[in-house]
Amino acid sequence: MSAPDPALVDLLGLVAYGELLAFDRLAADARLAPDLPRRAALSEMAAAEIAHYRWIADRITALGARPDEAMTPYVEALQAYHDSTEPKDWLEAVTKAYVGDAVSDDFLREIADGLDGPDRQLILDVLHDSRYAEFAATEIRAAIEAEPRVANRLSMWARRLVGEALSQAGRVAAADRGALTALIARREGVDVPALFRRLTDAHTARMTAAGLNN
Amino acid sequence: MSAPDPALVDLLGLVAYGELLAFDRLAADARLAPDLPRRAALSEMAAAEIAHYRWIADRITALGARPDEAMTPYVEALQAYHDSTEPKDWLEAVTKAYVGDAVSDDFLREIADGLDGPDRQLILDVLHDSRYAEFAATEIRAAIEAEPRVANRLSMWARRLVGEALSQAGRVAAADRGALTALIARREGVDVPALFRRLTDAHTARMTAAGLNN
Repeated sequence: MSAPDPALVDLLGLVAYGELLAFDRLAADARLAPDLPRRAALSEMAAAEIAHYRWIADRITALGARPDEAMTPYVEALQAYHDSTEPKDWLEAVTKAYVGDAVSDDFLREIADGLDGPDRQLILDVLHDSRYAEFAATEIRAAIEAEPRVANRLSMWARRLVGEALSQAGRVAAADRGALTALIARREGVDVPALFRRLTDAHTARMTAAGLNN
Repeated sequence: MSAPDPALVDLLGLVAYGELLAFDRLAADARLAPDLPRRAALSEMAAAEIAHYRWIADRITALGARPDEAMTPYVEALQAYHDSTEPKDWLEAVTKAYVGDAVSDDFLREIADGLDGPDRQLILDVLHDSRYAEFAATEIRAAIEAEPRVANRLSMWARRLVGEALSQAGRVAAADRGALTALIARREGVDVPALFRRLTDAHTARMTAAGLNN
């Protein structure tokens, strides 16, 4: 058995902390839900994030590292993103989850391509399933149908989310001591501009699917 | 197959909403945790409550009722209890969970004794396992050991919690249109003063076990 990949523990730490925060945010968003069925639905999605956290934390432990230590470098940058994008209401909350989770999932999927078999699969497994994205897009479309002006407000909100995410991404990259960028660079023939183009295209397609303007 | 017990849906609605609220409260308490391992531990306990919520909600649906409608009568009284007992810090949060969950579990266990086999078992299954109580008692004892004056502050807090719980219990009893009291009364040879004595004795023993004064 070869020594654990040093970049791997860093990446798993980032994913684990992302899951803890996703749990936290979905649980808080559940309080904004307009009725009990939607509140329960969001609470159940939050619980799924914690199951994913456990898988990742167990893998970090199996690699001989401590989950809390692996997560610590990312606490500040990810918390700053969430603090600067606190949703004011239910629609802002679902838009934030719809836009933000998808971009970060796409990004992690790209990074995971630089890993070997089982760890690559582990990360793909914990990325959000499409269930929440469908739920969120349905909520957003229904709100726009009921009140077309909502599209404008939520589109502006989504742009602000992406802007904040990009500005914090720089801090995440600084926090991880180069491990993530090394993982990206390790992929054969990596083309960073093309990577960002793929992320941007996918984001644009999602905005359109939910009835929002890019 | 006989018609569903009318009191049963009411009781399951109360338990289901209690689970949703327990999730919500544990998730919020996790933010007060002093470090990432304790934050993760609390988040995982919150997720367990949601799994229990799902079991109860599925049973309500199988009985031909709607979970949200079964929960609605209890929303106001249970929310009022939590709003009036918002923890100011981590130790108040764990004390609240330690004291409050145990009293309500004991109470539900007594009510469940009035039910038939499978539903009785379902309710006993979703009551909190001892894992959280042990975690909370350990936290409280360690805090008292580090700073003996903490015992006084948390004991007063626990007394306030019990007082608020009793005053909201009257509203719960009013909300459920008599179904829960009917379930209690249905038990053969029920002795209400003895029931309250059992609840009080168990509460006193738990306070002592955590190093608190009654």
